Amino acid sequence: MNARVALICGGGAFPIVAARAAQRRGEEVFLLGLRGIAGAEIERFPHIWIGVGQLGRAFDEIFSRGVKRVCFIGGLKRPEFADLRLDWGGARRIPEILKLLRGGDDHALKGVIELFERQGLTVVGVDSFAPDLLAARGDMGRQKFPSDLAEDLDLAKKFLADLSAYDCGQAVVVSGRRIIAVEAAEGTDAMLARVAELRANGRWRAKGRAGFLVKAPKRGQDLRVDLPAIGPETIAGAEKALLRGVAVAAGGVLMLDREGLAAQADRVGLFLHGFESST
Amino acid sequence: MNARVALICGGGAFPIVAARAAQRRGEEVFLLGLRGIAGAEIERFPHIWIGVGQLGRAFDEIFSRGVKRVCFIGGLKRPEFADLRLDWGGARRIPEILKLLRGGDDHALKGVIELFERQGLTVVGVDSFAPDLLAARGDMGRQKFPSDLAEDLDLAKKFLADLSAYDCGQAVVVSGRRIIAVEAAEGTDAMLARVAELRANGRWRAKGRAGFLVKAPKRGQDLRVDLPAIGPETIAGAEKALLRGVAVAAGGVLMLDREGLAAQADRVGLFLHGFESST
Repeated sequence: MNARVALICGGGAFPIVAARAAQRRGEEVFLLGLRGIAGAEIERFPHIWIGVGQLGRAFDEIFSRGVKRVCFIGGLKRPEFADLRLDWGGARRIPEILKLLRGGDDHALKGVIELFERQGLTVVGVDSFAPDLLAARGDMGRQKFPSDLAEDLDLAKKFLADLSAYDCGQAVVVSGRRIIAVEAAEGTDAMLARVAELRANGRWRAKGRAGFLVKAPKRGQDLRVDLPAIGPETIAGAEKALLRGVAVAAGGVLMLDREGLAAQADRVGLFLHGFESST
Repeated sequence: MNARVALICGGGAFPIVAARAAQRRGEEVFLLGLRGIAGAEIERFPHIWIGVGQLGRAFDEIFSRGVKRVCFIGGLKRPEFADLRLDWGGARRIPEILKLLRGGDDHALKGVIELFERQGLTVVGVDSFAPDLLAARGDMGRQKFPSDLAEDLDLAKKFLADLSAYDCGQAVVVSGRRIIAVEAAEGTDAMLARVAELRANGRWRAKGRAGFLVKAPKRGQDLRVDLPAIGPETIAGAEKALLRGVAVAAGGVLMLDREGLAAQADRVGLFLHGFESST
């Protein structure tokens, strides 16, 4: 195929796994690692390092290789303006970049996609070359999603959909028709650690395992950037918080190693469920 | 006046301050302390102790004293069913009580008000005899509410109003058109501690003081029960989280000692603002 796709790589293991998946499908990959964010493992592939503000260089490198498709993959820390070492390409776009730094993450990421598409590039989602990285539909492990939790799942889905207008969190813990914790800037792992604390200090009282984590992309979220993700630490966090399981939007949440996560959930007795997303 | 009001007392100092305020207005007070929740200080007033499930006894004691007005005041921990030592009055109402324990706090409290009013009692808010316990309108300390935060305040008010359908939190931290933290079961103090952590660990990066706490009752909340409250620990928590101030819904948030809190905010350089509530 030799189709060539450029991966703009944030942090974590997803860029590597995505690059491998693309290669397995016969795609030629070119990785652009965001300096200070992406891991050194990207050097196993054809790559360059760029600063977050070096859009000019990113465009030049992408165009000089004749690449037409670009995929954003990996975690993005929100950059501080002082950290953006702007090159000329970036400097010409300072007003646009300033706009990106205000408001929530969605706003910023939509802006980045626009900038790339205005240059004639096609921004694609990871599903276009590595669909196995996304949550599947239905029960991914041995445990079935408990039917007594259907109402709570509906509540959490509706809650997250309503919250998405505010561009803050993408995860909640729900139990007995009650929202126990809402994720905002702290991230899912910190939220799960908080729920473990709430159980320990008695602010949330329940017997045995109770409640579950629900994670989904924002309503109307562009699935080409910054998808929510879960990994082994999510399952481990849910176990420590004495939850009953984890439910994610099928096709809308990244999973580094779907089978591995399902096996981990089985080992600790949690369900791992991919629900039909309404968006 | 000798008008007689019964205070059903939860935890914290509010019941005591409210009882004193009522006495100053010439009202005869009768306190019913919730066992395991209310503080021993209620014994300074005419009082009895009751279990959360002892509705029968509460009604008997209230009626035998010819009291017609009841006020709920103080923090309520969500009771576990096993903790409710039901008496006969309570036992007859088990189905109603079971209903109260499901769903969010609003649901439970509306049910409790209904139970009392069905007995011919009038449930009143603390504003009817101690209006100084509620947040005032405008700047309560020396610092003016910064005009550059008006947009963030609107965002937070709208966010909290939308969230109220879910009956979870009543407070957020907002900064630069972004929701930094959302309160659910952990409470405001724990949320502020989390924000301090987010600043310390760099997940929320800002220079100097940034953002502020916004706290309001739920949209359509019955102001006769379980009003949100702030106290010295709220101001101290906001200071530690490097916030710029605290904004509360005027007339909708309890303040134990308004002048004391304003003086504390002045000392640490925070604004303390009562905003016009849209509800």
